[in-house]
Amino acid sequence: MTYCVGMRLDRGLVFMSDTRTNAGIDNISTYRKLFAWEDTDDSVITLLTAGNLATTQSVVSLIEERMKAPGDRSHAILGLPSMYQVASLVGQTLREVISQHAQTGQKADSAFNASIIVGGQVKGSEPRLFLVYPEGNFIEAGEDTPFLQIGETKYGRPILVRAYDPGMSFEAAVKLLLVSFDSTIKANLSVGLPIDVQIYERDTLRLGKRFRVRADDPYFRTISTGWGEALKTAFDSLPDPTF
Amino acid sequence: MTYCVGMRLDRGLVFMSDTRTNAGIDNISTYRKLFAWEDTDDSVITLLTAGNLATTQSVVSLIEERMKAPGDRSHAILGLPSMYQVASLVGQTLREVISQHAQTGQKADSAFNASIIVGGQVKGSEPRLFLVYPEGNFIEAGEDTPFLQIGETKYGRPILVRAYDPGMSFEAAVKLLLVSFDSTIKANLSVGLPIDVQIYERDTLRLGKRFRVRADDPYFRTISTGWGEALKTAFDSLPDPTF
Repeated sequence: MTYCVGMRLDRGLVFMSDTRTNAGIDNISTYRKLFAWEDTDDSVITLLTAGNLATTQSVVSLIEERMKAPGDRSHAILGLPSMYQVASLVGQTLREVISQHAQTGQKADSAFNASIIVGGQVKGSEPRLFLVYPEGNFIEAGEDTPFLQIGETKYGRPILVRAYDPGMSFEAAVKLLLVSFDSTIKANLSVGLPIDVQIYERDTLRLGKRFRVRADDPYFRTISTGWGEALKTAFDSLPDPTF
Repeated sequence: MTYCVGMRLDRGLVFMSDTRTNAGIDNISTYRKLFAWEDTDDSVITLLTAGNLATTQSVVSLIEERMKAPGDRSHAILGLPSMYQVASLVGQTLREVISQHAQTGQKADSAFNASIIVGGQVKGSEPRLFLVYPEGNFIEAGEDTPFLQIGETKYGRPILVRAYDPGMSFEAAVKLLLVSFDSTIKANLSVGLPIDVQIYERDTLRLGKRFRVRADDPYFRTISTGWGEALKTAFDSLPDPTF
């Protein structure tokens, strides 16, 4: 399993992913699931991946290979005229990789499926955020659904729904996402630290701050402990029922 | 889907269940999923059911029928010498009902599976709480895992893990469970009000308070609104990161 969230803010976009992968509970590894590229002053794209690791690594490798292919920019995700076309190309690539393995060769125990969150901005239009399905089609985050989750989405969702605010600062958004990730990590062994974070400030057309939160990160420990206490205080502040 | 929780406290047991059932999102009904019986001063048993409604209704009907069969108390769940034997009999009954339909007749689109939480007390021993699987085997709640959930368990779990305390009052436990149910109901359309509650105070060997919380219940509305605000306050009380 995996947990990744892409979030739309008035100020831009925030992306967060865990790094744990597993094939059974006795085969656990750490892999990056957050990828970002920029074509300075022209476009900025971030990807978050969940699902079959062989599939998502192939997709990312293909995207990178095609970006660098000299003379053939027709399949490159940087340089496209809109984020819609970027999402569409990521969808095509994902579908291509899955169908390569799913339709021929050995049947696998688990599906080759994967989902991808794609977000970014292309010069001349707004920042946009999409969730690409294994079939290659996709949905876009909007005002009513301003964040997209993939992987183990349930444990961390209630706090996102309650505390999200489009006007919040990047700092508050990172704090909110860390609380959501902490709840998920506490409940599901297949989601684990370190956590990767990527920030994109709208209209800069350059990748913003990117950092990794490790288990020994003092701020993460403050949040993890502090949230437990804050929740207890919040809970105690509600009146008891009478019966 | 469904959401039910059985919880062990120092003071006794608390049971809570929603009442929504669905076969597709366009076929929604309200059914009781909480059942309780007492054999005054001898034993008290509560059941919470999740899964295929035909299966769980059959199990409950069989349990009730066998309890009333004159002269045949050999299959009755009241009158057994221990809660272990009660859980075992519920497991056998569940397995019997599932196998009746699963092994013969038409294949169904969805499985006939169901899970049941059984809790109560038999004179001369402690209150005990079990989760019975469709296969008929079961696990027991203990000090380390003092509550058992069935159905849509994920959204409402983080708050249970953080705020549960074995020494809490019945009032606080009901408040905690209502917060957990509210988070789940807000996230999953297949879990819905009204909510049934049953309390059992240890060593009384009589069913305790039992009530239904409806959508217009003023206390539930206080909790539902108040929790959103309390969470925001809790969230704001944590320090922002710096980067």
